[in-house]
Amino acid sequence: MSIFGLIEYEDATPEVRAIYDDIMATRRTNWINNFWKAIAHDPATLKRTWEDIKQIMVPGALDAVTKEMIYVAVSVTNQCNYCIASHTVSAQQKGMTDAMFKELMAVVGMANETNKMVTGYQVEIDAEFKK
Amino acid sequence: MSIFGLIEYEDATPEVRAIYDDIMATRRTNWINNFWKAIAHDPATLKRTWEDIKQIMVPGALDAVTKEMIYVAVSVTNQCNYCIASHTVSAQQKGMTDAMFKELMAVVGMANETNKMVTGYQVEIDAEFKK
Amino acid sequence: MSIFGLIEYEDATPEVRAIYDDIMATRRTNWINNFWKAIAHDPATLKRTWEDIKQIMVPGALDAVTKEMIYVAVSVTNQCNYCIASHTVSAQQKGMTDAMFKELMAVVGMANETNKMVTGYQVEIDAEFKK
Amino acid sequence: MSIFGLIEYEDATPEVRAIYDDIMATRRTNWINNFWKAIAHDPATLKRTWEDIKQIMVPGALDAVTKEMIYVAVSVTNQCNYCIASHTVSAQQKGMTDAMFKELMAVVGMANETNKMVTGYQVEIDAEFKK
Amino acid sequence: MSIFGLIEYEDATPEVRAIYDDIMATRRTNWINNFWKAIAHDPATLKRTWEDIKQIMVPGALDAVTKEMIYVAVSVTNQCNYCIASHTVSAQQKGMTDAMFKELMAVVGMANETNKMVTGYQVEIDAEFKK
Amino acid sequence: MSIFGLIEYEDATPEVRAIYDDIMATRRTNWINNFWKAIAHDPATLKRTWEDIKQIMVPGALDAVTKEMIYVAVSVTNQCNYCIASHTVSAQQKGMTDAMFKELMAVVGMANETNKMVTGYQVEIDAEFKK
Repeated sequence: MSIFGLIEYEDATPEVRAIYDDIMATRRTNWINNFWKAIAHDPATLKRTWEDIKQIMVPGALDAVTKEMIYVAVSVTNQCNYCIASHTVSAQQKGMTDAMFKELMAVVGMANETNKMVTGYQVEIDAEFKK
Repeated sequence: MSIFGLIEYEDATPEVRAIYDDIMATRRTNWINNFWKAIAHDPATLKRTWEDIKQIMVPGALDAVTKEMIYVAVSVTNQCNYCIASHTVSAQQKGMTDAMFKELMAVVGMANETNKMVTGYQVEIDAEFKK
Repeated sequence: MSIFGLIEYEDATPEVRAIYDDIMATRRTNWINNFWKAIAHDPATLKRTWEDIKQIMVPGALDAVTKEMIYVAVSVTNQCNYCIASHTVSAQQKGMTDAMFKELMAVVGMANETNKMVTGYQVEIDAEFKK
Repeated sequence: MSIFGLIEYEDATPEVRAIYDDIMATRRTNWINNFWKAIAHDPATLKRTWEDIKQIMVPGALDAVTKEMIYVAVSVTNQCNYCIASHTVSAQQKGMTDAMFKELMAVVGMANETNKMVTGYQVEIDAEFKK
Repeated sequence: MSIFGLIEYEDATPEVRAIYDDIMATRRTNWINNFWKAIAHDPATLKRTWEDIKQIMVPGALDAVTKEMIYVAVSVTNQCNYCIASHTVSAQQKGMTDAMFKELMAVVGMANETNKMVTGYQVEIDAEFKK
Repeated sequence: MSIFGLIEYEDATPEVRAIYDDIMATRRTNWINNFWKAIAHDPATLKRTWEDIKQIMVPGALDAVTKEMIYVAVSVTNQCNYCIASHTVSAQQKGMTDAMFKELMAVVGMANETNKMVTGYQVEIDAEFKK
């Protein structure tokens, strides 16, 4: 239930409520997930984290669904259950199909395997990879 | 230089050479990077790993550059220097621009940050994320 | 419930009971948390782990609350839910305020973000940092 | 040497130079370490990361040296060599003595050990830790 | 319950059923654990993963129980609860005694501790370890 | 070269020298590797760490080479280069053959792969694995 509990919209200060409003408007949704309600106890962190995510996750050179899949790849590698659950749903909402998810998982699994093998075999970086 | 040293093409058995040939043909290149030369001391592992990667990294529901960027995201999260160096180059060869790399890094950094914050605040998964 | 179950005080051998007594006396509390009851099935490990923690966590050049916050920082980075829950409570008991916890989480999040960015950008260590 | 190379002060755009100036003024130093010069190729990321760090690392409920030691604790747990080197120096400049560093390492080591043991023994969180 | 749900034997395609049959025959058991039922939604991944595990986990230079204990050591280090639960049971079925499990946990804990201390102290690799 | 430098035998205090002697006697070798020389600046940590390792790594329910291979498995998963280099040599000295090392790497790679896939697919633990 989170260390300080969750701050619901109706209990939020105007400062926090403004950020909740921006989250919902930006995401075109009418609810706020627990992460934001948990860190709302620290309004400076809520504001900074939201503004960072908003800036970073906007489509640019990478589209929205690719960014969410990268978020999932990191969250899976870190074994963060909350993040996997939330960003998998976000990715699906932005267009990730089941086929895409399956390939994402296959790549993430493979990368984790070879990351360790290359280190375990103590392989030096090829000169070709250093430009 | 790797625990058992590197097996160069000219010193490889026909079995290993056949895999080297397939790697170069599949990747349309004329050299083999150190990872393969290092695990070639275990031909069964070389064969299995290459066949897995070949199957997984082929464009499908996700295109080739997206798959390489996911590989980079995992490698960065695992702090695997060899893998970051090699897969960043691979991603660039498959079309990752500098702008795409920069956004990739921004997302990876952000995901690592919030993965930890959500866990540190002990946030429970929203019912909405459990379908 | 732990692989071998939990050994309660009344079921413990004198050897284990002596360590439980020392834990409670040192921590000025009248209960034993599950971690100790779980590893008590291996008395040598219980003894070694407790004596190490007792030696390490005593106030010295760093005070007690700083040590507990470092413990939380590591536990969050490792995504260890049990450890986060137990050491957050310990830190609070030793004087960590809500404001301190919030700043702790902000630093942990930021460090996890830049740890990955610096590695992903393949940044070399400055000569100035090598003395 | 970093993927895009390092942007030195004299080659920086006014936008980047302004951030370099703020880093040096805030830290009361006359040089910029490689991390900033590496990410300066992405001015938005440079700006966002610096402003976040500046906000987070300012002394508040936690003093400056405690914050740097927490940064080191995370960096060690993530095995990030660059971050360990740079933040250990920062911590020393802010007052971390050798004795404090040694205790920091002892706590980080211990926390990493028990994080794994508690998970390996599959220990459930005590009701007492859930408030 | 897994993102796509679990595919039970009676609902499986002949292709998936053949792999389930091989899993049960190889492991001399009459049930399939959830991991396989979850990834069965991606038959290519199910097939590849099972064939890899079957090849890798067969007794060779290392016996079956040693391989399972190594699997547990990795799973504990990664804090993967599912994997710890499943591979601890597998290891027990292949002969891991309680005494062996306890020593396994002690080594895993110690290794995680010294892994971090050696990195935190910035220790260089001895020439003797480079052959 | 390590943060405080390395303490050589001839420069060590009698307290540190006694531990160096015990390390060499226990390991039947005539040199001390850098890790011990680095942490010798903190004699209490040197003593505690050595006594823990000595107790844990002694052959018991698990033999010496199995314990060293578990150490390598953890070190590879943590991407600790020093630890991989040193414990691979130790494992070889205690009897690990090249064939054993290759199988060890294969299992470590596979475990890292499935650890992530099972978490990414959000698979629940089977009732059968909870006893």
